[in-house]
Amino acid sequence: MSLTSKQSTLASQVVDAIRSVVGVDSAVLHEPRFNGNEWKYLKECLDSTFVSSVGEFVDHFESGLTTYTGAKHAVATVNGTAALHVALQLVGVRPDDEVLIPALTFIATANAVSYCGATPHFVDSEERTLGIDPHALREHLQGISEIRSGLCVNRHTGRIIRALVPMHTFGHPVDIDGMMAVAQDYHLALVEDAAESLGSTYQGRHMGTFGLVGVLSFNGNKTITTGGGGAILTNDKELAVRAKYLSTTAKVPHDWDFVHDSIGYNYRLPNINAALGCAQLEQLDGFLKSKRKLFESYKSAFASVQSINLVEEPTDCKSNYWLQTLMLNESVVDQKKAIFTVTRDAGLMTRPVWTPLHQLIPYRECLRMPLPVAESLGRRLINLPSSAQLGGVE
Amino acid sequence: MSLTSKQSTLASQVVDAIRSVVGVDSAVLHEPRFNGNEWKYLKECLDSTFVSSVGEFVDHFESGLTTYTGAKHAVATVNGTAALHVALQLVGVRPDDEVLIPALTFIATANAVSYCGATPHFVDSEERTLGIDPHALREHLQGISEIRSGLCVNRHTGRIIRALVPMHTFGHPVDIDGMMAVAQDYHLALVEDAAESLGSTYQGRHMGTFGLVGVLSFNGNKTITTGGGGAILTNDKELAVRAKYLSTTAKVPHDWDFVHDSIGYNYRLPNINAALGCAQLEQLDGFLKSKRKLFESYKSAFASVQSINLVEEPTDCKSNYWLQTLMLNESVVDQKKAIFTVTRDAGLMTRPVWTPLHQLIPYRECLRMPLPVAESLGRRLINLPSSAQLGGVE
Repeated sequence: MSLTSKQSTLASQVVDAIRSVVGVDSAVLHEPRFNGNEWKYLKECLDSTFVSSVGEFVDHFESGLTTYTGAKHAVATVNGTAALHVALQLVGVRPDDEVLIPALTFIATANAVSYCGATPHFVDSEERTLGIDPHALREHLQGISEIRSGLCVNRHTGRIIRALVPMHTFGHPVDIDGMMAVAQDYHLALVEDAAESLGSTYQGRHMGTFGLVGVLSFNGNKTITTGGGGAILTNDKELAVRAKYLSTTAKVPHDWDFVHDSIGYNYRLPNINAALGCAQLEQLDGFLKSKRKLFESYKSAFASVQSINLVEEPTDCKSNYWLQTLMLNESVVDQKKAIFTVTRDAGLMTRPVWTPLHQLIPYRECLRMPLPVAESLGRRLINLPSSAQLGGVE
Repeated sequence: MSLTSKQSTLASQVVDAIRSVVGVDSAVLHEPRFNGNEWKYLKECLDSTFVSSVGEFVDHFESGLTTYTGAKHAVATVNGTAALHVALQLVGVRPDDEVLIPALTFIATANAVSYCGATPHFVDSEERTLGIDPHALREHLQGISEIRSGLCVNRHTGRIIRALVPMHTFGHPVDIDGMMAVAQDYHLALVEDAAESLGSTYQGRHMGTFGLVGVLSFNGNKTITTGGGGAILTNDKELAVRAKYLSTTAKVPHDWDFVHDSIGYNYRLPNINAALGCAQLEQLDGFLKSKRKLFESYKSAFASVQSINLVEEPTDCKSNYWLQTLMLNESVVDQKKAIFTVTRDAGLMTRPVWTPLHQLIPYRECLRMPLPVAESLGRRLINLPSSAQLGGVE
C-alpha cells in the first residue's frame, strides 16, 4: 500500500514525531495564550479612556520589562522594526554608513538599516548558535577595514562601518562575548536584535542588555504579545530619553506649544497594547517552562529520526526556545519540500527559515562576506509547532 | 478685587463662554468615548487568539471604512503617519522629489515626506478653510515651475514636484475642487491628508476620496480611535494591493517561503486595535451629531465675545468638527498666552495650532512660498475642549 511507502519517507517520520508530541489535533506554528489578566487590564484601560500612546499601562509595561531583563531603561514602541530603526539612529547610524547584520535573519533587520539610509553588510553565521560567527567576522574585517580617526572604515567602499547588529535566532543567544570583542576592537556600536529572545540569557544575563542598545518584539507570534509591539532596551539614560523623544515625533516638552526640533517618528506603543503586554509579562515564566518542556519532548521524539537534529541552546546559555527548530543534514535537504507539504497536509504547521537576505531582490547588491554557513542553514532549518501550550505545563 | 479686573479680560470671557457650554467640570481637549461594543469585540478578539496583524476585525474594519467613506478600498495601518508614508510611495514620491504640503499642519505630514527622502515645499493657507489656498498655490507654481516630459519641475532647484498633499485642518475640508484643478494642471499626484477628517464631506462626498490616495488617523485624540491606527483610502485596486503589500514587509504570498521583493514596512494595524475600531465606527454618526451640537453651543456662547470668532465649516462642506476652534483677531493675539494660562488653570484644556513647520528647526531650510496667512493663523487659532460627550447628544 502507498501508506507503507509513505511512512518510510523522512517526511512521514517527521509527522509521526511531531504527532507524538502535540497529539492528534492540528497545530499552528505559534499561537499566543491569554489565560492571565489580559481581559481585566484591557477593561481597566478602556475604562480609563487612555487607550493611546500615553497611559499607565505603557509605564507599567516598560517598568516590567526593565525588572525582567535587568536593563536600566525600556522604551515601548509600536513594533520591533520601529524599535530597531530608532536603536540604529540612537547609536549614530547615518545615511551611507554600512551596518553589519547576519544574512540569515528576518528582513526587518535589513529594512531598519535601509530606513536610516544606510546599507546592510551581510555576515555569515555559525551552526552552533545560528547567529553571527565572530571569528569569521573578525577575519573579514581584518581583510577589508581599517580604523581611521577612531572609526571603522571599509577600505573598498570608503564608507564607515558604524554598527554590528547580531540577532538571536529563534531565541538562541549568539556568541555575545565574541560580538562584544569584535565591536570593541573594530569601534563598532553593538545593537542586539533581541526581537526573538525575550527570556533568553547568557550566563544569567538577559539578551538585549549586552549591547549599547537592544530591541525586543511582541508581535502576535512571539513568546509574549501585545498584538503588535516592541521595545528598546538600554542602560544609558541619555539614550533612553532620546529613544522616547524620537518615538514621539521629537516633540519638545511644553505645556501647550508644538515644537519639534528634529525629524521624529510616530512609534510609541498604544496603552491598550501595553495593557495586553502587562498581562502577558506576568505569565512569561510559565510560558518559558512550557516551551522548555516542549523542547525536551521534541528531542526525545526526534532522537530516532536519522539525518535530522533538534536545535539546542548553546553552552552557558538559556534559550527561550521561541521556535523549535530541526536541522537537516545536507544529504536530505532535497526532502525539505516534501516535509513542508506532508506536515501541512497533516495540519501541522512547519516553515523554513528565512531566505538569506543577500538572495532577495532588494538586498542582492549589498556588500557581504562569503556566506557558506548562512546559505547552508538557509537550506537546512525547519521550524516546528512551538506554542507554549503544547508543552503541557500549566 | 482682582477677580473683577480678571473677569474683564478676554481670557476670563473665554473661560466663562467655555464653562457655559461644558459645565463646571474640568474638560480635556478630546477624549474618546467607549459606550458601544468595544468590550465585546475586544473579548472576541482575545478569545480568537488573533490579536496581531491578521484577523477578522482588520477585515471588518477596512470594509466598514469603505462603506462609510465610499472609497473602494481601505488598508488599515498602525497609524496615520505610516499611512501617509505609504501613500506617498504609492503615488511615486522618490528621494529628492519635492512635495507640496501646507506649512500649517501637524509635523507628521512633513515627516512622511522626509521618510521618502523627499523634501517638503511649504504652501500658504486660506482663512476660509484653514487649508491650502489653491489660488496662491497656482500663482506660486506659475512663477517657479514648468512642465517637462509630463512632470512638474521646479525651475530653481531642478527637482520634480511630485505630489500635492492638502490637509483638512481640524476636520474642515480644504477647497478640494481647487486642489484637483491645480493637481491636474501641474501634473501633481493628489494625496489627501484626511487624518483629522473622518466624517467630513464636500458636496456629500467623503474627504480622502478625491485624491488618488487619502489617509485617515485613529489616534487616541481623533473622532474615533483604535488606540493608534490609520488607514489608506483609494479607488484604485492596484494601489490598494500595493499598499497592503508595502505595509506587510513587501512579502510575496507563498505557503511557506519568505520572499520579499522590495523594501517594505511593518505597518499593518493589529487585529486588537481593529476590534476597537469596529466598535467605534458603529458609533461615529452619534459622535458627529454630538460634535455638531457642541459647535452650535460654542457658537452661541462666543457670539458676544469681541475679537474672537468660532471657526465654521466652509460652504458646501460638512465638517466633522473634530476640534472646535477659536480664531482671534490680530489685535488680540498678545492675549493668547493669558488665554492658555487662565483656561488651563480653570481645568479647561485649550491649545494653540501647530507652529508653522517652516519655523521649526528640521524644516526651516525647506522651500516655501510666501506664507502670510499660515503665519497669521499660526498666531490666531485656539482649540477648545471638543469631546463628543460635551455635545450632550446621546
